Amino acid sequence: MKALKIIKIGGNIIDDDKALSDFIFEFSKLKGPKVLVHGGGKLASKLANQMGIEVKMTNGRRITDADTLDIATMVYAGKINKNIIVQLQAYNCNSVGFSGADGNSIVSIKRPVKAIDFGFVGDVVKVNTEVLNLLVNNNITPVFCALTHDTKGQLLNTNADTIASELAIGFAKDFEVELYYCFEKEGVLLDVEDDDSVIENINTKTYQDLIEQGIIADGMLPKLNNCFHAIENKVSKICIGKPKMLFKSNSKFTTIQK
Amino acid sequence: MKALKIIKIGGNIIDDDKALSDFIFEFSKLKGPKVLVHGGGKLASKLANQMGIEVKMTNGRRITDADTLDIATMVYAGKINKNIIVQLQAYNCNSVGFSGADGNSIVSIKRPVKAIDFGFVGDVVKVNTEVLNLLVNNNITPVFCALTHDTKGQLLNTNADTIASELAIGFAKDFEVELYYCFEKEGVLLDVEDDDSVIENINTKTYQDLIEQGIIADGMLPKLNNCFHAIENKVSKICIGKPKMLFKSNSKFTTIQK
Repeated sequence: MKALKIIKIGGNIIDDDKALSDFIFEFSKLKGPKVLVHGGGKLASKLANQMGIEVKMTNGRRITDADTLDIATMVYAGKINKNIIVQLQAYNCNSVGFSGADGNSIVSIKRPVKAIDFGFVGDVVKVNTEVLNLLVNNNITPVFCALTHDTKGQLLNTNADTIASELAIGFAKDFEVELYYCFEKEGVLLDVEDDDSVIENINTKTYQDLIEQGIIADGMLPKLNNCFHAIENKVSKICIGKPKMLFKSNSKFTTIQK
Repeated sequence: MKALKIIKIGGNIIDDDKALSDFIFEFSKLKGPKVLVHGGGKLASKLANQMGIEVKMTNGRRITDADTLDIATMVYAGKINKNIIVQLQAYNCNSVGFSGADGNSIVSIKRPVKAIDFGFVGDVVKVNTEVLNLLVNNNITPVFCALTHDTKGQLLNTNADTIASELAIGFAKDFEVELYYCFEKEGVLLDVEDDDSVIENINTKTYQDLIEQGIIADGMLPKLNNCFHAIENKVSKICIGKPKMLFKSNSKFTTIQK
């Protein structure tokens, strides 16, 4: 099977014009079929502020009410997505922006209300790769924002790490998928204060140990759960680290293995 | 050659939730390859207001400064475009949202500064239908907002009527293109106060007469210039009227002929 790279970038790149344009330049040169997934960064909160719309929280968790979903749609699918597409085109990387509604590519259900009503948040139930395959097989790069839909006319806000892992699983039917999570650190660290303490390999067994030791906690936990979900569903390779892991051969990063 | 319909809807539909969802339902049922182009409506001005950003005008013409372009990108490519896509998907009309940057589909140049500096406004110079053909030939409907790009990394605001006519000309290489301009009137009217005074056919000769008589003026002039530009460039059929001209056999509307 042909290889396909899925690369997820987060707020640390999105919020920094120079970092983003450097990344886009390097990304545009990557050979072979590829898909980009981007998070939202701080722009949505900034716009909410400018519009005088309050960011709603319950028990420290962000709630997506109708206004917040509108803002996410404008910022993620509009400003950020088109800003990436227009820069990719300038480097001759032909690309098309996607939400999960476009091409009916990512179907989700509104998260059931239990202790918290998260509002318009979607949990992914199905990835349809027909339209995406048509594009990547013609050398066109889909660029995803973190929105999905319920097939009944409702857009839903969805975690960008989850979008990346679910797309990876979806593409694994037809490609040998490599999934790259780019973030602000060199990888999963043994000591969060020490950038040199990158754990180079994590597998199912060592993962459990690292959780029990409290080394993997907080924000890393859902990220790594996404990774292991993907690796257990035929995704070939998963790497976590700074974007340079993709472009420089001597970079350190964390590789997830079964 | 196979027929392809390009349908442009404007603010009178975009700004009215009921009219828009009725239109989307009817549009979703249209058979054969089709493309939708939507204008912006009043949402962009409303957002500018909420954000405390002034709409800049020179000699009564709207100027697209950097803030205004950002707002257009958020509202047109984000909120309106995804709102249309998600509703089309609910009616099983598989569709993908496009700006002119997506798929490098519509290339423009920033309008040269003469008497007025219009700012980030693009005049279309090239339509690339490769990606669009790939989609329409696979029964997927592109939905365009009125943004283009200059291939150097700059998005540009472009008139939606122009987008529709330029796409029509681009597709005319491979399809027998029918272009429909939907607006709030039954067609081009002899008497602007009388909805029954629809001019059913306009050709190059009668067009000049109507301009000289002052019957076609103001906003209708650029719209009809777009029509004649298209009809002179191999577009098969152009109609102007209310959306029902597409869905009801007994509707009146104006047809443009060579």
